[in-house]
Amino acid sequence: MCTGSEANDLALRVAKQATGHRGVIVTENAYHGVTTEIAAISPSLGGVGSLAEWVRTVRPPSGDGTAMVADARTAIAELQAAGHGVAALIVDTAFASDGFIAPSAETRAALAAVQALVRAAGGLVIADEVQPGFGRLGARGAGSGAAEASLWGFPRHALEPDLVTIGKPMANGLPVAGLVARRDLMQAFGERVRYFNTFAGTPVSVAAARATWDVLHDERLPEHAADVGDELRGMLAELAGRHDRLRGVRGSGLYLGVDVVDPESGDPDTPAAVALVSGLRERRILISASGRDNAALKLRPPLPFSRADAERFITELDGALGDLG
Amino acid sequence: MCTGSEANDLALRVAKQATGHRGVIVTENAYHGVTTEIAAISPSLGGVGSLAEWVRTVRPPSGDGTAMVADARTAIAELQAAGHGVAALIVDTAFASDGFIAPSAETRAALAAVQALVRAAGGLVIADEVQPGFGRLGARGAGSGAAEASLWGFPRHALEPDLVTIGKPMANGLPVAGLVARRDLMQAFGERVRYFNTFAGTPVSVAAARATWDVLHDERLPEHAADVGDELRGMLAELAGRHDRLRGVRGSGLYLGVDVVDPESGDPDTPAAVALVSGLRERRILISASGRDNAALKLRPPLPFSRADAERFITELDGALGDLG
Repeated sequence: MCTGSEANDLALRVAKQATGHRGVIVTENAYHGVTTEIAAISPSLGGVGSLAEWVRTVRPPSGDGTAMVADARTAIAELQAAGHGVAALIVDTAFASDGFIAPSAETRAALAAVQALVRAAGGLVIADEVQPGFGRLGARGAGSGAAEASLWGFPRHALEPDLVTIGKPMANGLPVAGLVARRDLMQAFGERVRYFNTFAGTPVSVAAARATWDVLHDERLPEHAADVGDELRGMLAELAGRHDRLRGVRGSGLYLGVDVVDPESGDPDTPAAVALVSGLRERRILISASGRDNAALKLRPPLPFSRADAERFITELDGALGDLG
Repeated sequence: MCTGSEANDLALRVAKQATGHRGVIVTENAYHGVTTEIAAISPSLGGVGSLAEWVRTVRPPSGDGTAMVADARTAIAELQAAGHGVAALIVDTAFASDGFIAPSAETRAALAAVQALVRAAGGLVIADEVQPGFGRLGARGAGSGAAEASLWGFPRHALEPDLVTIGKPMANGLPVAGLVARRDLMQAFGERVRYFNTFAGTPVSVAAARATWDVLHDERLPEHAADVGDELRGMLAELAGRHDRLRGVRGSGLYLGVDVVDPESGDPDTPAAVALVSGLRERRILISASGRDNAALKLRPPLPFSRADAERFITELDGALGDLG
């Protein structure tokens, strides 16, 4: 396939075929893509009102995690009562649009419980690694197995997905995406459904994907992302100490978020976040605003991002904050 | 976008948003792509039973065309009675999976009538040019306006689409696709729906698309497709005169079909068609079997295909037919 949207769309088709169910559970501000099917499970695009009738949302696994488990029980009961059943739980394993959830014993326990409830209802678990995958969250390599595992977001949360979708960084900017799944699921789908895709595995994209994979390993970019990400997070925290408009530095590796707030009230300040994005663009640095209020800065630089790049970013963000007054 | 599936998926999203309706009308063996939404309007993938409940099929505009108009009346009435309303009629303008419908006064009149019925019901018309577009059907250039028009399939049938989807040959093998639409439709959609696509307009694909466009014009490939297509069709007809397994040579430009039949009964012979595809593959020529019975050979060579290539193809097909015995 070419895009993460196509990968998630196919993952849902496989899950619905395999389970015979239709219901899908997503986190409450999830983003998974833009096809008709996937926009209908992406509340971050248009709110809960934009979701299909066979979709239910749960709070992400933050705090002590009990909220997510309670929501999942309700969601499953509602989907079953409506006759949809449960086809799948799908999660972005960085929980980026839900505000970047860091792994903890509590969140892992919550996800394990939700996973068990979904499986008991006959549903599958889909890990959306389109954004977090390929080492973006940073790898701490102790032995090659651990390094491999930390290329992905799902092991951090002890998730055991049946299907995993990959894309975006896979060929460093060229369009290619994929679906990794349990063999029995793909076999059953292949026997029942005709699926082909003209540009799946198109040679230029595949050559770029192979080269990207080699560079990722040879230059130890996942480990580099962990190191530079820690430095950048430290610099951001220091900057937030000097500017009362910045709060809540969080994230992992080279995938970080920081809230922009009103200095008086502490409330999310969407206009200020948008102004900072514009100010940085004038300074030739491209980032975006994200989150439920569109008031968090979302930082997702290329993995070869260096300490010098991080310093330049902080200098320019400092300047843009100064321009805001 | 990257794929024709994504383009058709977005076209339907736009049509559903614009009309506030949900119903879609397709031809009875249509193929439009593989996302969940588009597979649900593609009976050629899984038959009428695979379609969503808001889809109705009509016979393609063959013969005197009255069948399609009658089917459209029924389809619209059913969609309205079910509360879906009519969002769109979508047609592949070569009607390839429906058996390649050539333009005629009768088919044009049928399509004009169906188009008027759909519009009267508040629906839009989508021309799927993913396969026929970019000159594949052959251009007869008398003046540049005529040559431009004949880059596409819809003017041949006097269709006046509100939305046109393009893809596949656009960048000669690299993934890029597009949606061309009335300005007011895109404006309204853009105001109401957040849509973005990481790889839409990715630089390598766009460079390839520009180069493809230049070569198409500089080498007059649409005109070339008309000339070589006529020659190939003539050679196929001659071959069908010598082999009673081949019947019904049809199509336009370099997009041709020919039925494989049982010499005794004249019925479609799927195993023979599959054997011919395999036999040609062993002879290093790739084609596919298509149509409702998967018993028609579908010929869609690259546009620079030459008379010599056509002669080689006919020689090898003759040989593969001989191997069948």
